Amino acid sequence: MIYVFTGNGKGKTTSAIGQAIRVIGQGRRVAMFQFIKSKEWETGEEKTISSFGKIFSLEKGGSGFVGIMGDKLPKKVHEKTAKNFLKKIKKAVARKKLDLVILDEINVALFLKLISIKDVLSLIKIIPPSTDIILTGRNAPKKIKQIADLVTEFKAIKHPFDKGVAGTKGREY
Amino acid sequence: MIYVFTGNGKGKTTSAIGQAIRVIGQGRRVAMFQFIKSKEWETGEEKTISSFGKIFSLEKGGSGFVGIMGDKLPKKVHEKTAKNFLKKIKKAVARKKLDLVILDEINVALFLKLISIKDVLSLIKIIPPSTDIILTGRNAPKKIKQIADLVTEFKAIKHPFDKGVAGTKGREY
Repeated sequence: MIYVFTGNGKGKTTSAIGQAIRVIGQGRRVAMFQFIKSKEWETGEEKTISSFGKIFSLEKGGSGFVGIMGDKLPKKVHEKTAKNFLKKIKKAVARKKLDLVILDEINVALFLKLISIKDVLSLIKIIPPSTDIILTGRNAPKKIKQIADLVTEFKAIKHPFDKGVAGTKGREY
Repeated sequence: MIYVFTGNGKGKTTSAIGQAIRVIGQGRRVAMFQFIKSKEWETGEEKTISSFGKIFSLEKGGSGFVGIMGDKLPKKVHEKTAKNFLKKIKKAVARKKLDLVILDEINVALFLKLISIKDVLSLIKIIPPSTDIILTGRNAPKKIKQIADLVTEFKAIKHPFDKGVAGTKGREY
């Protein structure tokens, strides 16, 4: 089963994490791979997930925000980071027996053209059909929605960032 | 901060759980209270959450689906269950120092008129403003959206249940 969580509303990454919490409770194994997000920024979810050991792994493989929030890196660097991360994920999913693979913010990496649809399809191809896959991030390309079994659009009806409230510890990270 | 997660799409409850995972990672405390859902049906998330001990508690206080899925209970029984649960929650939030309170499926309890808007407002009133609150469930009443700081509508763009696929262990529970 392939799930896509997209849209501009809050809750996509946390929803994937909550799904993982459900899955490991049923005695299964999860691996989460985060595009865009970089290792330098430690999140609350990371701290909790690290306590689960092998049954729920989390790896961040991005170089941070792309072209926004003071990002000074050339686009090429972000591209290289994303492509290398994709290779790493391919190796990981081939090696481990997993019940759920979360590709967090991969839709954003696609939208920014750090990786191609072809790259993503070749990754999905090596994941066994019995393994569920969740792809998160706003602006999911049409092609990704087409191959999905389930698509939820997270729509921001009301959002405090509209009023200029900044992301805070324990709320947005 | 008051969050409302509503809409017909998958991911509302799991999103609240993921938010809790983030919050406890930052050293804070969470209590989740589930309306509608009954104790007889053990979920994957329940098993995982029970391992966190005091920092993340989960309590189910419903009598199961209302008027659907073979429910034979009189509506009055569901009402009584919901009202008693609300009393219990009031006591719990007054006693514990919490950073996040999750009122799962409370929007459904409201929509089905098991409890009233007045009941919910009186509960919110006794929760300190520094404590975040998440209210989940489809069909959130307008009044609830009005008092919220953040509203995400989870919109089902594509859903396998449309094709007659049943809920499965580790996916929907």
